Amino acid sequence: MSKLILPDIQSLTDARHIPIRRVGIRNIRHPIIISNSEGLEQSTIAYWTLTVSLSAKEKGTHMSRFMTLLELYRKKVMTPFMFCEMSKNMLEMLSADCGDINAIFPYFINKSAPVSKVKSLLDYEVKWIARATNKEIEFEVVIQIPVTSLCPCSKAISKYGAHNQRSNITISLISSKEIKMEQIIRLVENEASCELWSLLKRPDERYVTEYAYNNPKFVEDLVRDIAIRLNEQNDITWYRIEAENFESIHNHSAYAVIES
Amino acid sequence: MSKLILPDIQSLTDARHIPIRRVGIRNIRHPIIISNSEGLEQSTIAYWTLTVSLSAKEKGTHMSRFMTLLELYRKKVMTPFMFCEMSKNMLEMLSADCGDINAIFPYFINKSAPVSKVKSLLDYEVKWIARATNKEIEFEVVIQIPVTSLCPCSKAISKYGAHNQRSNITISLISSKEIKMEQIIRLVENEASCELWSLLKRPDERYVTEYAYNNPKFVEDLVRDIAIRLNEQNDITWYRIEAENFESIHNHSAYAVIES
Amino acid sequence: MSKLILPDIQSLTDARHIPIRRVGIRNIRHPIIISNSEGLEQSTIAYWTLTVSLSAKEKGTHMSRFMTLLELYRKKVMTPFMFCEMSKNMLEMLSADCGDINAIFPYFINKSAPVSKVKSLLDYEVKWIARATNKEIEFEVVIQIPVTSLCPCSKAISKYGAHNQRSNITISLISSKEIKMEQIIRLVENEASCELWSLLKRPDERYVTEYAYNNPKFVEDLVRDIAIRLNEQNDITWYRIEAENFESIHNHSAYAVIES
Amino acid sequence: MSKLILPDIQSLTDARHIPIRRVGIRNIRHPIIISNSEGLEQSTIAYWTLTVSLSAKEKGTHMSRFMTLLELYRKKVMTPFMFCEMSKNMLEMLSADCGDINAIFPYFINKSAPVSKVKSLLDYEVKWIARATNKEIEFEVVIQIPVTSLCPCSKAISKYGAHNQRSNITISLISSKEIKMEQIIRLVENEASCELWSLLKRPDERYVTEYAYNNPKFVEDLVRDIAIRLNEQNDITWYRIEAENFESIHNHSAYAVIES
Repeated sequence: MSKLILPDIQSLTDARHIPIRRVGIRNIRHPIIISNSEGLEQSTIAYWTLTVSLSAKEKGTHMSRFMTLLELYRKKVMTPFMFCEMSKNMLEMLSADCGDINAIFPYFINKSAPVSKVKSLLDYEVKWIARATNKEIEFEVVIQIPVTSLCPCSKAISKYGAHNQRSNITISLISSKEIKMEQIIRLVENEASCELWSLLKRPDERYVTEYAYNNPKFVEDLVRDIAIRLNEQNDITWYRIEAENFESIHNHSAYAVIES
Repeated sequence: MSKLILPDIQSLTDARHIPIRRVGIRNIRHPIIISNSEGLEQSTIAYWTLTVSLSAKEKGTHMSRFMTLLELYRKKVMTPFMFCEMSKNMLEMLSADCGDINAIFPYFINKSAPVSKVKSLLDYEVKWIARATNKEIEFEVVIQIPVTSLCPCSKAISKYGAHNQRSNITISLISSKEIKMEQIIRLVENEASCELWSLLKRPDERYVTEYAYNNPKFVEDLVRDIAIRLNEQNDITWYRIEAENFESIHNHSAYAVIES
Repeated sequence: MSKLILPDIQSLTDARHIPIRRVGIRNIRHPIIISNSEGLEQSTIAYWTLTVSLSAKEKGTHMSRFMTLLELYRKKVMTPFMFCEMSKNMLEMLSADCGDINAIFPYFINKSAPVSKVKSLLDYEVKWIARATNKEIEFEVVIQIPVTSLCPCSKAISKYGAHNQRSNITISLISSKEIKMEQIIRLVENEASCELWSLLKRPDERYVTEYAYNNPKFVEDLVRDIAIRLNEQNDITWYRIEAENFESIHNHSAYAVIES
Repeated sequence: MSKLILPDIQSLTDARHIPIRRVGIRNIRHPIIISNSEGLEQSTIAYWTLTVSLSAKEKGTHMSRFMTLLELYRKKVMTPFMFCEMSKNMLEMLSADCGDINAIFPYFINKSAPVSKVKSLLDYEVKWIARATNKEIEFEVVIQIPVTSLCPCSKAISKYGAHNQRSNITISLISSKEIKMEQIIRLVENEASCELWSLLKRPDERYVTEYAYNNPKFVEDLVRDIAIRLNEQNDITWYRIEAENFESIHNHSAYAVIES
């Protein structure tokens, strides 16, 4: 049986008169090469979701073309600009009016410990989203930044000590100019009770313990203090700031969110 | 040291002039008793998130009151009405203008196999969301319904067989009148290639195999056919229909979404 | 086509001469009623795995019978004794020489806060395992107990404060006599830097903060101190103690394990 | 305060007389470079766990040295041999008698579709484990291979069609000689109802549909047929074969395991 005579069900005309907002492939794991703020390449692994709109008259999209697109961009060095270009390319390949690409991947920064200066990688969970129409492309970056939070109430009411814990700060933002991920991460880490490192020597551990004790923050303080910093950035057109504290004194989280 | 003289940091006045959209507790596991469509009680376990708005002048919310609220409603039989009442109660207890409660829990339906009629429980993942302001409360229900999907293309181009797989259909809806969860689930299962049961005897297995083969559906067909049914329900003011096929021929999913 | 003439493929003789260690159903969500230490019933939801051995000459097991078994025990009040009886019943229903049942479920204890005595539920993840042969049944209980750990090094080297975090202690044990889950949980919580509660008032928060500061423990101390306590229990024939600290100063865990 | 006078709590002598089986760091995300079967490098991301034994007299291990080790090997091209060398190095750095390293990472193979020959990456979840003592190092590889399974019973009892689904085959093995991961994966994929590809054109989809229909396999058949193939490999000293079918007609899995 030749390839040509296989019926193409997806290309049939649909009679239900119902357009589909988005259709495509979801949660496919595929490598990605990210260019970091110094222009260095970082090979990492992303979970991708690629979807397009489908007009009321088309029965189905062409799923295999999303894979072809992924393969096309596999060895390219991805910047937000390149990622948006990829979404534009997707609309063409799928003959679609609009569509979204999102990729979630771990991103590493080589940090120096605060006192000993020993270096180690810290992992941040990043999500890039490109929302493309025939007219424009919106790029959103989401970064999950792990930090320490130390409870102001616990410190104020106790003779010694204060409960503290790991927290995740999740920043989502849309900007009129590209903002380096390292810049956002730095801004957020500066507003935490303390930032994290993967490798700490004893003098470093002393430093982070005392630093956190000197900077108590509620989950509410975290999102407010970061909001003040983001409000100073004129290029940011929209943001959402979420903080989740994995409370060391409970088996649940404290959570706060501010949206611009 | 007496309780009275412990400083109340959360109640201090905040000078940053930044209101917080939502703050509260997240992902706390707590029992819930659900009333099913026949008024029977079902004891299940939910992950709860309870959050309220916080005005610019308040430093922090009172986290422990969310737990007090949960404890208050632990032994009540929860209906959408009672769940909304709980959200109203939350606003009062926290002195907040608006707030959300959401609870995610497994919900079971005792189904009869199609031929043998043997009974077994099937689990559905349900999410209830109450969004309360001082003026009104919006209730959204989200139900994840596992079904079989069978690929029309695979069937049409192959001499025999057709690839099929488990799919999750996720229905989110807001309605002006209460719609029974069993009714939504029935509507969705009727539009799948085939519905699922936990217990099937051989005659049942034959039935579901042939039934699915006779009802091939793309991920696009699933969301469209369900949209047609939901459009017939006048009480529904908003819906989102998502379908995710855990493709048996790939290691990724096909996905489609329609929103009213 | 009548039910009787459907071929029974599973019952065919297998010619490959390879016995199967375990075969069955995995990760099925189904309700379970647990009897707690005071004999009160607790309705919760378990993920079940039920498997049996299959001799070299049998082609397949009868998957639907596992569901029939689950349905049979759905409304029974489960104790370790009843759970073991269920595994014996499974061997008969499946005509198998040996088999395992395991069920993972959240279990709740109503705890009084240390100072205010307000009550709230804390959730523990429990796993029951019954390993049955025609001769005997082994029962293993696994309990995951969330606690606070406070770092002795951080405390010793810092002028003030000490990093602390939520930790999970996982106790697995086999005993010649039934040991109440509440008893194991109490024993473990006593050896942590501090135990957890879902609801704490300010005087309670002060108490847990100072208590943890007065009881610094490395991940190594946690497993050793619990081992000392478990060694005092003569009925325990085997145990494993694991501690995982979700470090507040890192984005990874510290981990230790002792096995008897 | 100078670095020298910070007390070293971990190095104190412990009086409890309880050795610790393993202690270290768990679930740290860090890059890894894998050499594939053609000697080509593949940059991927692993979750690492590194642990060592601790004698009864030592109070604590030195957690930061695990990070130093990870950093040392970050840019090396990892083979099973290099991975074992790393574990030996760990024992020296931590002055330990025995210890384990395990790393879990996605591994990609560039596959050609069966008819069209178009190429696409398929992801496999791999776990490497090195168990080191001062005398010897044991290396275990675990590979999770996604495949299609098609039910022989469903095919035999139905007039047309047969339910099929994605399955995960998990192979764990210890070998006296290095076995290429590609070789294990090929062996397993040959025994499935059909192997998977990320990108299939219509002629390929027809091929996989008919191929699976012609190769029905129960979960029991999958583990037995793979066992026969692994038994032919003389270098394998131990194996475990697990198959999990994400049943398309149920909301739970069928599961089987054989261990040599």
